[in-house]
Amino acid sequence: MEITSVIISEEKAVISDYRCFFCFARAFERLIEKENLSPEEKKYFASDMFGLFNKAKQDFSIPMISRELHVLLKQYSNNPDPYQEAKKQSNDLVLGMYPELKAVILQSGNQFETALRLAIAGNIIDYGIGNHFDLQGTIDKVLSSEFAVDDSLELKQAISEAKTVLYLGDNCGEMVFDKLFIEAIRHPNLIYAVRGAPVINDATMDDAKYVGMDMVAEVISNGYDAPSTILEHCSAEFLEVFNRADVIISKGQGNLEGLLGQTTKNVYFLLMVKCEVIADALGVKKGDFVVFKGLK
Amino acid sequence: MEITSVIISEEKAVISDYRCFFCFARAFERLIEKENLSPEEKKYFASDMFGLFNKAKQDFSIPMISRELHVLLKQYSNNPDPYQEAKKQSNDLVLGMYPELKAVILQSGNQFETALRLAIAGNIIDYGIGNHFDLQGTIDKVLSSEFAVDDSLELKQAISEAKTVLYLGDNCGEMVFDKLFIEAIRHPNLIYAVRGAPVINDATMDDAKYVGMDMVAEVISNGYDAPSTILEHCSAEFLEVFNRADVIISKGQGNLEGLLGQTTKNVYFLLMVKCEVIADALGVKKGDFVVFKGLK
Repeated sequence: MEITSVIISEEKAVISDYRCFFCFARAFERLIEKENLSPEEKKYFASDMFGLFNKAKQDFSIPMISRELHVLLKQYSNNPDPYQEAKKQSNDLVLGMYPELKAVILQSGNQFETALRLAIAGNIIDYGIGNHFDLQGTIDKVLSSEFAVDDSLELKQAISEAKTVLYLGDNCGEMVFDKLFIEAIRHPNLIYAVRGAPVINDATMDDAKYVGMDMVAEVISNGYDAPSTILEHCSAEFLEVFNRADVIISKGQGNLEGLLGQTTKNVYFLLMVKCEVIADALGVKKGDFVVFKGLK
Repeated sequence: MEITSVIISEEKAVISDYRCFFCFARAFERLIEKENLSPEEKKYFASDMFGLFNKAKQDFSIPMISRELHVLLKQYSNNPDPYQEAKKQSNDLVLGMYPELKAVILQSGNQFETALRLAIAGNIIDYGIGNHFDLQGTIDKVLSSEFAVDDSLELKQAISEAKTVLYLGDNCGEMVFDKLFIEAIRHPNLIYAVRGAPVINDATMDDAKYVGMDMVAEVISNGYDAPSTILEHCSAEFLEVFNRADVIISKGQGNLEGLLGQTTKNVYFLLMVKCEVIADALGVKKGDFVVFKGLK
């Protein structure tokens, strides 16, 4: 297959699709059943959620809506970190696989490519869309599949010339795969960014320390609690690094949803495409793996 | 099994459950894909729908919300009767089965009971919840199942003593089963009520004439286009009959949702229980068949 870059047209730059409302409704229908809420509280939560959807009639940001819904759920459930246990479990799961995954990388002919592929497989660990994922099946698939878009050679070259590399983290568990990839990148000045506070199973500073990310990279917070990177809400410290970085590696669909079309920086998006909305926006298929250089 | 009457407590009299919002969202997510709407129109429809849900924070009427959503869909799609073809198909389907069903009733030991059971089986023909239903499987099941609540002996007795019987129709296709039941009831003064205008696949005056309902009963309109019987919106003509009737037979979940707890009249509800919300309200299980005398 020809290696192509995804050209994002201006019209496609902001992804705000009506199908996202229905997807959120399905996800939160499930989530409110897991929390200790009365039927009355669930009704009010649902009503508040639908109020948010109603107000978002014009263009909306998927991760901003997601953030507001999760803030709402935290308020209703009086639980500031509903995924705390799930996050620890997925970090422990992948830490347990670390030696085996490390061996796969070291024994491969192209350590950069193998580690990059595994990092994308780790992106399957996502509680934002569903509760179930087949990690081993995804690892097997990612190691043998042709990517729908593959700018990884260009990414490798760009990293080799970069003074500063910024790596935007995504989820817990997945971040252990990121760590393996960062070890394979072996860049002297790589900075790993996490969310500013707990949201879904996204990686925070505590999680980064728990998996030892601080041993292989400088770790910073982006200063905001959306399941994404939303530049207008990020901290000055984060933006200083973002602006300084020569190469930005953006992991996962959440970061893509926040950043696509929002910056002229050299952002490489590494992700599994998890829904039809993003598949349509990128011109690929749901389930595809992609590494592509985003353009404003 | 002991034959019991469902006692509806005052608290349970108004069924307005948060789960209905999610069920509506699922149904209309599917419906807007079937209409020739642009993504922009679908987004606005979704936003309007969620606005309705948001406003319904306090107690709401399930069939009133359903009506408003279907009015909205008709406006967006410029289609006053989206189910016209489906309604004709299901009427034709059951008209084709009429001789066979008639023979089953005539050959049975208890024609009233067999026809009543078949009338409840016909209740499976409902486009409000899903597109797929197993009619033959439901017929087989209804003829051999024990009903979760069975006040049919009392209903038979009440009919034998009634001067006027009002039969509240439900859906197309199903109404051919109703016709067979009405033929078995053989009451000299039975009035069959239909919806005042098309909504989902509910039976209207045109449909009643199409299946020849006017040959076995007087047919009247209830004067309103909710997929239910909502007394405060029904026509004076309908209310005169409703008030005069000695026995009222209410077919299906939609009529139940509108009438439960709203009248002191002798209403017998005949239905398949199609969702958890109604199952919980009646203290039975989803999929159960029930014939019960409703109490205010």
